Amino acid sequence: MTTDIDALVHGVQEGDRRTLARAITLVESGLSADLDASLELLNQLHSAATSKDSIRIGITGVPGVGKSTFINAFGEHMIQQGLQVAVLAIDPTSTRSGGSILGDKTRMEQLSRNPQAFIRPTPGGLHPGGVARRTRDTIALCEAAGFDAILVETIGVGQSEVSVADIVDTVVLLTLAGAGDDLQGIKRGIMELADVLVIHKSDGDNQLPSRVAASELANVINLLPRRFEAWQPTIDTCSSLSGQGIPEVFSRVQEHRSALGNKTIREHRREQSLRGFDDTLRDLVINEFLQRPEVAQRLGDLQAKVRSGELHPTAAAVRLLTK
Amino acid sequence: MTTDIDALVHGVQEGDRRTLARAITLVESGLSADLDASLELLNQLHSAATSKDSIRIGITGVPGVGKSTFINAFGEHMIQQGLQVAVLAIDPTSTRSGGSILGDKTRMEQLSRNPQAFIRPTPGGLHPGGVARRTRDTIALCEAAGFDAILVETIGVGQSEVSVADIVDTVVLLTLAGAGDDLQGIKRGIMELADVLVIHKSDGDNQLPSRVAASELANVINLLPRRFEAWQPTIDTCSSLSGQGIPEVFSRVQEHRSALGNKTIREHRREQSLRGFDDTLRDLVINEFLQRPEVAQRLGDLQAKVRSGELHPTAAAVRLLTK
Repeated sequence: MTTDIDALVHGVQEGDRRTLARAITLVESGLSADLDASLELLNQLHSAATSKDSIRIGITGVPGVGKSTFINAFGEHMIQQGLQVAVLAIDPTSTRSGGSILGDKTRMEQLSRNPQAFIRPTPGGLHPGGVARRTRDTIALCEAAGFDAILVETIGVGQSEVSVADIVDTVVLLTLAGAGDDLQGIKRGIMELADVLVIHKSDGDNQLPSRVAASELANVINLLPRRFEAWQPTIDTCSSLSGQGIPEVFSRVQEHRSALGNKTIREHRREQSLRGFDDTLRDLVINEFLQRPEVAQRLGDLQAKVRSGELHPTAAAVRLLTK
Repeated sequence: MTTDIDALVHGVQEGDRRTLARAITLVESGLSADLDASLELLNQLHSAATSKDSIRIGITGVPGVGKSTFINAFGEHMIQQGLQVAVLAIDPTSTRSGGSILGDKTRMEQLSRNPQAFIRPTPGGLHPGGVARRTRDTIALCEAAGFDAILVETIGVGQSEVSVADIVDTVVLLTLAGAGDDLQGIKRGIMELADVLVIHKSDGDNQLPSRVAASELANVINLLPRRFEAWQPTIDTCSSLSGQGIPEVFSRVQEHRSALGNKTIREHRREQSLRGFDDTLRDLVINEFLQRPEVAQRLGDLQAKVRSGELHPTAAAVRLLTK
């Protein structure tokens, strides 16, 4: 496939949504034939993307916590503040718990009709490193297209939550009120990575339990190591249904950015870029190797021999690498 | 370095501890010069290792839960049942929480003096995949050396707990009694991977709280998806200090093996081998790439350019790969 890179670069910088979507598709492509084009595209848009003073927010929480509904309300609020908002929804490929973004379109219906918003699901079926790389690149494209705020939605299971902290400035963790049992559902690991905690669905009869859960959670997070020295994670309640608390969550995000300061945010992004470079390198090196005809040809046979017990896994791997 | 593989193979099969230790060091070596020798060694010992009807147990739990003390008592009990026990302690390289096995030698002093036991720490400083591969290979060597039971100790943080479920038959998770807060410290992810749960340090004034914690935990694990269809995870209390409950934990492990049956255990190990092959392949391919002189030479420069923002991470990675 030949791609007219100049047209893509121009269209993205003009903020044309259809061109942006095509550019993302190119960058997401796992085909080595598209690699040169996507590299060229990222390179040409790199300075436009990095000069942009964007807000990168990760929205995470277990399935059922209402991330899409929250993003619908939160995104609308940000747009009312004069921002252009891009939403990237990651569908992780956790082997154990999984997750689906089916039905999310209806939950984000209001936002998806707003001309100041751009919603893009990231395809699943990739290993976590691949998802992180593609999301990182998609963020760059959205920033080059002029978006002020990027919301990255991840299902907080498996390794995806680690990845989201690697690609955003501020991590918002949604959770629900309920009996003590609920708190057990939140992984300590993900709490350690959250900057802004939100007890979601705090409406109707659920308002009091939500406030109770918030104060319970406050005790827990005080014990956790801080992600940033300058920031003590906050806890608020909110309802995407009534809109209560939505502006406050956005204020928290802004407070988080002020507390860190531009210098720390920039430094943090540099560290993230460096990790992204390492991850991407691994990803690409493996893919290049597995696509070699002599490797692809022999892989199945060696897998079968490992499975039958005929070959030791390490020995089989070394054999594929050296012969 | 030239290595006398025949002498190593012979010594390991004789069960000579010093030779076993040398063989493990060879397999752990990251040096490409040792790769051929370690491959040859693993290949020659492969049939001896796979024919062995060993018990592979993972012992996991957060730092401070008393894993080493437990292994000291648990290992002694297994030896009293006529088994030879190898202990492999993994020191993970979690970027956030970390962990240390300093002081473990004293906590396993009794076991380390027992001639039926073999204790081996796995060096840290490796990424999770590397740890899993080396531990997998070390298990093979210990089994070839005639050990009946392999205890793999991991600190249940970061990604190490996922790895341990990938290399053992039965996962024993240690936790402590306490207020509701404690349960939050256990990640749901790790609970989903545990077969035998143990409330540890159930002695003195802690016995009643331990029993309470056990029944609380029973409610939680009933809600979790099962790792094996044939097995509902169990919960017991035990004290490595008094010895109370130690035989029961071993009984649970045996019950787990019986419930699964030899066929399922073998099938499970085959799946693990296949995953091990994949992981090892990735590991080796990356290492081979990074050790190429032209790559090693340019890596630092590209990292600096990514860090300064001059180059997009993906673009830098592609550049290193293609030019």
